[in-house]
Amino acid sequence: MSREVILREVGLRDGLQSVSTFVDTTDKMEWIRREAAAGVSEIEVTSYVPPKLLPQFVDAEAVTTESLRIPGLTVASLVPNSRGAQRGIELGVHKINFVMSVSETHNMKNVRRSREESLADFRNMVELARAQPPAQRPVLCGGLATALGCSYEGRVPVKDVVHYAVALVEAGADELIIPDTVGYANPALVRQVFKAVLAEVGDVPVAAHFHDTRGTGLANLLAALDCSVRAFDASLGGLGGCPFAPGATGNIVMEDAAYMLESMGIDTGIDLLALLEVRSVLQRALPDVPLYGGLPRAGLPRGFVPARQALAA
Amino acid sequence: MSREVILREVGLRDGLQSVSTFVDTTDKMEWIRREAAAGVSEIEVTSYVPPKLLPQFVDAEAVTTESLRIPGLTVASLVPNSRGAQRGIELGVHKINFVMSVSETHNMKNVRRSREESLADFRNMVELARAQPPAQRPVLCGGLATALGCSYEGRVPVKDVVHYAVALVEAGADELIIPDTVGYANPALVRQVFKAVLAEVGDVPVAAHFHDTRGTGLANLLAALDCSVRAFDASLGGLGGCPFAPGATGNIVMEDAAYMLESMGIDTGIDLLALLEVRSVLQRALPDVPLYGGLPRAGLPRGFVPARQALAA
Repeated sequence: MSREVILREVGLRDGLQSVSTFVDTTDKMEWIRREAAAGVSEIEVTSYVPPKLLPQFVDAEAVTTESLRIPGLTVASLVPNSRGAQRGIELGVHKINFVMSVSETHNMKNVRRSREESLADFRNMVELARAQPPAQRPVLCGGLATALGCSYEGRVPVKDVVHYAVALVEAGADELIIPDTVGYANPALVRQVFKAVLAEVGDVPVAAHFHDTRGTGLANLLAALDCSVRAFDASLGGLGGCPFAPGATGNIVMEDAAYMLESMGIDTGIDLLALLEVRSVLQRALPDVPLYGGLPRAGLPRGFVPARQALAA
Repeated sequence: MSREVILREVGLRDGLQSVSTFVDTTDKMEWIRREAAAGVSEIEVTSYVPPKLLPQFVDAEAVTTESLRIPGLTVASLVPNSRGAQRGIELGVHKINFVMSVSETHNMKNVRRSREESLADFRNMVELARAQPPAQRPVLCGGLATALGCSYEGRVPVKDVVHYAVALVEAGADELIIPDTVGYANPALVRQVFKAVLAEVGDVPVAAHFHDTRGTGLANLLAALDCSVRAFDASLGGLGGCPFAPGATGNIVMEDAAYMLESMGIDTGIDLLALLEVRSVLQRALPDVPLYGGLPRAGLPRGFVPARQALAA
């Protein structure tokens, strides 16, 4: 059954990259398997970065290969450059998430490249992907970090976001994602930026990635939803942050995001009670890392009806 | 200068009623004075309930009288019945907040009365108020508890909410407030309920009171804002809950609500940095009570411009 909105788990990448404790491959796989079984249909399972930079992802190959065996799951991975994309293509990953920053300063600090160099390398990835037979060609998603604000440059001009969104699409991106990298977004800005981008990129799907740094994560999700965005990143327990963005802790909480959408009658395909139980994997693997979430504390409201059931009634 | 949106502090009532530690009158007054100085223009300072029921409000008279000396502050108090309203009128309080539940079960459990009995008592309050000379007549705000869901009855029919909203207005309410008493609201329901009520009550202002029980508080605020609601309850540090609603901890966080609105370019009249400093009063008075909030943890974004300054530019 198709979902009206897709919530994508990014805690295994965006969450774990800010955690110094190595999470065992078996724990990662239990998280992935159980969350997929709870109905999460797309998971960013790892990052193809050099292990010396982020030792958390030393098991990227194993995690990818195992995840690809889970029926129905879209397996995605972050790549910092075309070398990472090459690894992904060899492993047969379904989706490659590439991120460049709209802010030149952030891009330099994050990947030590200018924006134009990042864009040129994305074109290399497109070439690599297109050299594959169609069945083995990964979906290429282009991300626009700091599109909603930059901890170095502050407000980022909307025209710059649109410029690089169009550039990524012209370079061959199948999808785009607009992240609130450092948790600066507000609903008015979200509407402004997403509307501007959506007006210029035609049919290319645009996803959103919000942090709950200043409490506005789900309000930003609602604002993007109002702009017809239909795919959102989130992480179980709100695990996450950005190592290059001080204080930017916390992706939006998967449990609360799924609850909000389901309670609005929007089908996510996620079984909320099964999802809540997956938290135990994180509690065991990362006992010292705080997990967030209102739904886990309060439980489902009396009389709650999942969207799919409400829609069928 | 007029504000575009009014955020009303309810922590001294809705927050403290769920806290067993008695907060000294001097601490309450420091909280009120400093928050008013930070630009919060309306504060529900206490509740006129019998002290044997809620000892926290044994100092209701002193708090009201002292608060009324603060220039420019709208001083409100909750009243459970016309006896409480009489106390408020004698004290000269500016606004009387009366709440009845749309759910019959919740009203019986909360105030041991049927809804019709509550409504009849509200008519007594209107008579009491109208017997005052105009300059001493308090504003009467009618609240519709459980309008967005009830922990006993589950979903509450929208037509019942509209029915009692109209009944309160016909009885003489100057304002209405729709609270998410038990934290069940979602943005779709908020839009449905507020639109339905606003369509029937003419020019009577309708405020919103959300809890962040399941993480959706600010998204609900955004949804109500989209319906042209311009007054919202909140509490410093998200202090709050409902003693008759298990798990319903936490009003929306004043700091995050003010930040979200200000960052959207909507003037609240609140100085965010001054507001953040008021938390120290709560930390000292209630060292064991958790305070919530993203802004207090993360601080203002680089390049942040308050709405009033942005509007003037």
